[in-house]
Amino acid sequence: MAELKGACVIAQSGGPTAVINASLFGAVRAALDSASITKVYGAAHGIKGILDDVLFDLDAEDPAELELLQYTPSSALGSCRYKMKNPSEDSSDYRRILEIFKKYDIRYFFYIGGNDSMDTCDKVSRFMAESGWDCRVMGIPKTIDNDLFGTDHCPGYASAAKYIAVSCMEVSRDACVYDTGAVTVIEIMGRHAGWLTAAAALATEFGAGPDLIYLPETVFDKDKFLAAVERVYKEKGSVLVAVSEGIHYADGSFVSEAVTSATDGFGHAQLGGLAVRLADMVKKALGVKVRGIELSLLQRCAAHCASQTDISEAVMAGRTAVEAAVSGSSGYMVAFECERGEKYVCRAKLVPLGDVANYESKIPLSWIDAENAAVTKDFINYLLPLVQGEPERRLECSLPRFARLKKQRAK
Amino acid sequence: MAELKGACVIAQSGGPTAVINASLFGAVRAALDSASITKVYGAAHGIKGILDDVLFDLDAEDPAELELLQYTPSSALGSCRYKMKNPSEDSSDYRRILEIFKKYDIRYFFYIGGNDSMDTCDKVSRFMAESGWDCRVMGIPKTIDNDLFGTDHCPGYASAAKYIAVSCMEVSRDACVYDTGAVTVIEIMGRHAGWLTAAAALATEFGAGPDLIYLPETVFDKDKFLAAVERVYKEKGSVLVAVSEGIHYADGSFVSEAVTSATDGFGHAQLGGLAVRLADMVKKALGVKVRGIELSLLQRCAAHCASQTDISEAVMAGRTAVEAAVSGSSGYMVAFECERGEKYVCRAKLVPLGDVANYESKIPLSWIDAENAAVTKDFINYLLPLVQGEPERRLECSLPRFARLKKQRAK
Repeated sequence: MAELKGACVIAQSGGPTAVINASLFGAVRAALDSASITKVYGAAHGIKGILDDVLFDLDAEDPAELELLQYTPSSALGSCRYKMKNPSEDSSDYRRILEIFKKYDIRYFFYIGGNDSMDTCDKVSRFMAESGWDCRVMGIPKTIDNDLFGTDHCPGYASAAKYIAVSCMEVSRDACVYDTGAVTVIEIMGRHAGWLTAAAALATEFGAGPDLIYLPETVFDKDKFLAAVERVYKEKGSVLVAVSEGIHYADGSFVSEAVTSATDGFGHAQLGGLAVRLADMVKKALGVKVRGIELSLLQRCAAHCASQTDISEAVMAGRTAVEAAVSGSSGYMVAFECERGEKYVCRAKLVPLGDVANYESKIPLSWIDAENAAVTKDFINYLLPLVQGEPERRLECSLPRFARLKKQRAK
Repeated sequence: MAELKGACVIAQSGGPTAVINASLFGAVRAALDSASITKVYGAAHGIKGILDDVLFDLDAEDPAELELLQYTPSSALGSCRYKMKNPSEDSSDYRRILEIFKKYDIRYFFYIGGNDSMDTCDKVSRFMAESGWDCRVMGIPKTIDNDLFGTDHCPGYASAAKYIAVSCMEVSRDACVYDTGAVTVIEIMGRHAGWLTAAAALATEFGAGPDLIYLPETVFDKDKFLAAVERVYKEKGSVLVAVSEGIHYADGSFVSEAVTSATDGFGHAQLGGLAVRLADMVKKALGVKVRGIELSLLQRCAAHCASQTDISEAVMAGRTAVEAAVSGSSGYMVAFECERGEKYVCRAKLVPLGDVANYESKIPLSWIDAENAAVTKDFINYLLPLVQGEPERRLECSLPRFARLKKQRAK
């Protein structure tokens, strides 16, 4: 493959994670180190920054601040949830991107994101190929949901999983201090895949965690749920339940959206999330003290509880994308293949973007023990290596010192 | 003061904190080290464990596990919210306590807790003195609310404050990633005192935190609130609001309890907490994207984000109580007096239990900038030294290894 000289643009998309900036760091560092890449741009708010011609000169950033990106949560460049049309229907966005690429002589495009972003990446990649503009396009995986196809796991997942496990360990200690009995329901992200909620099982494995875990991969049965809560309550006096926001009834309706007529006969939309709703369901049925806790945004930005393994792999994903593109690859997402023998080994590989786009990876049903509202040892063995290692975060007066980028606007 | 030989009992009461077990460790360690204390008991679930005759032999615990109590959140012995009657009205509980104290030859009683517990402590202390049973009673302060009288601050507060500050720093990074605008409301504990919510200002001080902070020490004005949110939204495109659960209107009614008729004309009790309610208020008034986050139990048990200063001081409080009692003191709570000069210095002192009981300490109004929904630099200078230092927690597979007590039942 002939050397391709030119600028690169890196962008971040979708919901942020604790390590999406670690991938940004990996990509920027590799791009700055590459002789083929003449200039490193960052796009503001994902693909929208390219469409709006808002690019930053990442060459102008202080290298020490770039290093700090490894420990800085959320998307430093900004993010978007912009869904581009199919170019066969409406190619205006793609033509605009081409225009901007030509303006800045962009020959490399790196997009850090999840399912939708890989789809965007794929479409941009094909459009560039058809248009004759020599540009290499690579996807860098990112999602706390861990639902990308073709990879052992996704950067961002392990840090969120670790935060969830640690928080569940702490809450389980807190929720049982009184001898008056209590049922606590913790709501965890994951609309269609239960990877995050299942991570709560790590807490149970290490001595203190949820008694019952409900995932969106299986059907939620209200009667079985209440019976299980009652059983544990009678045994232990306190119950900790972890639920995925995406749990649903047999007819496919989300439990979080179903109108619980018992609560409000007028069918008014109710405030409060799933945790509060389930806690209320338990209170009505069993008459016990309840509490609902929603981990909300905390679980996806908790850099203070990140996994160093996750950070290192996120950096590797960013670096690999750049190095592979410089070597001639285009139209791929970086993925991981892992060995979990005596020693955990994670290697980067490339999978075609078209294979990844818009496919959601879920927990294998064989790893779910639905009868006992639990997960199997196979899942624990899968997750445990991913959460290892404490990052050497930089602190300032014992508080996190996040990266401060200048974000100098490119002209 | 003559030496008093006999057993001691230690108990924990009220809402748990990240460091209440550090005080337990300090007290147990000092009691085990004391020649005057012949036996160390722990009571299950606070004063209820004494009433129910459920005591544990803490002498039988592995010293290494006791050490781990410093990094183990929540109340290892269990807690209670049992309010004892005034002995002049009904002395049956006090007579029962005396009976148990005589059964186990208990000459020292240490109670770790907040306002109510200091009241209990005070009453037990007076009853023992009147009954002629020579028993020294000491209170060990504990509360994330930081509302105990007569002390610079309370063990447990700083670790919760640190968790709140760190979480706000992370969420503030997350809540502004999209360019579509968003208002995020974080609800923080504190029914009558705003110490915890004010801690969110540390995040702002260090680069990324709430734009607006509402405390229960001042009156909440809905119109001013909406105007402030709108102003920041127009300036920055995203707004982060920190609110105390105890904010109230001019008539004294809690905002969390008031019926918002605009939402539900039938006046039904609504699910969801204050954060969701305020977010909903903003959505209705300004038509912008909103999110409510409740830190819930997470903020009081987040040992993984504790302040080492807090842990050390909590240990000191426990140790001081025992040493002072052995030296002859009784009827006091351990309190702190601090210097915040070049170097922060914290010394233990004793305050009479009667002075502490049932009085709530609030943020001085001079530290609150109500007009700008902020706190002053004086508050920051007060809090900052308290959150310093990262604990050397023990980990097992990168997850917290909490203390595992045998809790052998005493006979």
